[in-house]
Amino acid sequence: MEFRLEKTDAPAGARAGVLKTAHGVVETPSFMPVGTQGTVKTVSPHELEDAGVRMVLANTYHLVLRPGDALVREAGGLHAFMGWPRPILTDSGGFQVFSLAGLRKITDDGVRFQSHLDGSTLVFTPESVVDVQRNLGSDVMMVLDECVAYPCTREDAAGACARTLHWAVRSKRRAEESEARAPFSQGLFGIGQGSTHPDLRRSCMDRLVEIGFDGYAIGGLAVGEPKQTMMEAVALSAGLMPPDKPRYLMGVGKPEDIVEAIALGIDLFDCVIPTRNARNGTVYTRQGKRVVKNAEFAVDFRPIETSCSCYACRFFSRAYLRHLFQAGEILGLRLTTIHNLHFYMALMQEARQAVVDGRFQAWKKAFFNVYYGGNESS
Amino acid sequence: MEFRLEKTDAPAGARAGVLKTAHGVVETPSFMPVGTQGTVKTVSPHELEDAGVRMVLANTYHLVLRPGDALVREAGGLHAFMGWPRPILTDSGGFQVFSLAGLRKITDDGVRFQSHLDGSTLVFTPESVVDVQRNLGSDVMMVLDECVAYPCTREDAAGACARTLHWAVRSKRRAEESEARAPFSQGLFGIGQGSTHPDLRRSCMDRLVEIGFDGYAIGGLAVGEPKQTMMEAVALSAGLMPPDKPRYLMGVGKPEDIVEAIALGIDLFDCVIPTRNARNGTVYTRQGKRVVKNAEFAVDFRPIETSCSCYACRFFSRAYLRHLFQAGEILGLRLTTIHNLHFYMALMQEARQAVVDGRFQAWKKAFFNVYYGGNESS
Repeated sequence: MEFRLEKTDAPAGARAGVLKTAHGVVETPSFMPVGTQGTVKTVSPHELEDAGVRMVLANTYHLVLRPGDALVREAGGLHAFMGWPRPILTDSGGFQVFSLAGLRKITDDGVRFQSHLDGSTLVFTPESVVDVQRNLGSDVMMVLDECVAYPCTREDAAGACARTLHWAVRSKRRAEESEARAPFSQGLFGIGQGSTHPDLRRSCMDRLVEIGFDGYAIGGLAVGEPKQTMMEAVALSAGLMPPDKPRYLMGVGKPEDIVEAIALGIDLFDCVIPTRNARNGTVYTRQGKRVVKNAEFAVDFRPIETSCSCYACRFFSRAYLRHLFQAGEILGLRLTTIHNLHFYMALMQEARQAVVDGRFQAWKKAFFNVYYGGNESS
Repeated sequence: MEFRLEKTDAPAGARAGVLKTAHGVVETPSFMPVGTQGTVKTVSPHELEDAGVRMVLANTYHLVLRPGDALVREAGGLHAFMGWPRPILTDSGGFQVFSLAGLRKITDDGVRFQSHLDGSTLVFTPESVVDVQRNLGSDVMMVLDECVAYPCTREDAAGACARTLHWAVRSKRRAEESEARAPFSQGLFGIGQGSTHPDLRRSCMDRLVEIGFDGYAIGGLAVGEPKQTMMEAVALSAGLMPPDKPRYLMGVGKPEDIVEAIALGIDLFDCVIPTRNARNGTVYTRQGKRVVKNAEFAVDFRPIETSCSCYACRFFSRAYLRHLFQAGEILGLRLTTIHNLHFYMALMQEARQAVVDGRFQAWKKAFFNVYYGGNESS
């Protein structure tokens, strides 16, 4: 895995980069839609491609439970299994274990938990999670980390940081030991924790950089903390990350938060927001969110967004989408998902171009002016 | 609307025809997928096109309830509303009123019924149903008929036939009167009833032909009667229909029944079977049905059908489809629907080519030999 920085907007500002993986190139900043169970909900791989998606995230926790990483390996890896030939990042399962699984017991060795599907007991260790991601065959593997809820006492956050760092060392060792059985070159990213405690964020990230990874992620944010607190942690973390490695803000997020984080030097994002909101009937436009299933669109025969070139906007009206949602038809979920993915991808491409052209701050200001209808702080 | 017979396999046998409508040509025999609520469930118009679909059926009853035919008219008609530029046939709503709606009261004037959505009371008359289909702007409109359940006494069936014929006259008159407000040339098909009583089937169809329609349909079959009884009614009805008009067997059906009915001279079919079964995880292959969600396919990395060129078979394995069904993922429903539609369309095209080539009987025998594994009567 290689990362090349093409342009930086300012010493601590937005970056345009190129991430080279075994399954192709990803221009950054880039947003990864979430394909939890080996499919980005409602859309096909070719629709992802058409929407401009270049990398997807898949969830280790879900795939271990079903269909199992051994089966995915037998299928030729996740790319072959899900019919997606471009880059894939797999998370470590840590976040899901802490947020989805049943009773769980954390020890220094790993975490024992109950499947949310059938209650069976499983164990994730830093080593097993690397092994699983070798089986899945992702382009970027993530280390197992301990995620804490918000708010979190300094003591609890410090404990989680210590364990996360201990596990990071073991993860890296396992990745090195198992390199021979990798189907191709797989990168490994470390994850910084520390909740909202700046000193912990700092010490954790500093230590991760000492250990050395192919990229660095910021975990444990967007879990309920105020936006300003989140952005402070992002700014602090980004400032500690080596400039020549990709920087990944996990689980973020809303278009406005992504734009802010790009401005702070983040390269990679993932979130369920564009796809989950789409299935709830919420679409993103340059003028902000719209709830397409609302009655106001019943006789509105314009596309979601007149300037949009996505499949949904080229062929279908708000009135039709509203009808599909009212009638509970799957095509409605598909079309809003396609639109939202297209919106996110176009946003990332525009942001990147603005960095390349040396006009990122002006672009950002213009984006917010329109998005908030002239009120950036709303 | 024009219909041209290209080739007939035998005096009372399979036919290859061409149906010309305001929205293009349909080569017959042809199968119409059902787009109940203005969308063929789970698939986009472009996927229908790719699967070889040339004409879809939409349900007047459902569209009247939601979003309403006035709104569809305002949208520029159903073609524009649902983004489907090719031919559309709309049913009259009769079948749904008799099978879906709540309390209903039939009089000679029409039928009063309660919406299955909100219990509100609506009235369909032969005239209102033509008016609605003018608003929807379908290429082929169907007359309102009285559908009876199976079994049905001769007396009840005779009463329904009499009313159906009375309504047919009124439907034709209303269609003539309202021609000026048609958005383009819309055909009107009559529907023969008579349940399983041959003399009623005969007198009803004879009278319909006297009244004169752009095409003739056989209604009231595939409602639980034995297959042989159904085929006898089809054979009898087909023999009474003018050879120069399209013949439509409503609500049929299974691949094997369609092939039998083609052999009896039927040109048009519609049924929810390929799409509904797909959503239940059942796929059609030349070797018969398969339930792709079954455990036997968990590690089967072949496509549904090796010889199939549909999108699902080109890119995805049975194991992946099985996983998608296990995980409740929408992409699974989409892929099996695409496959089944492709299967049906390819079957119709093959049957047609066999008629054109003068080898329909041999083709039919070969189809059944493979489909039933050598046992045609199974």
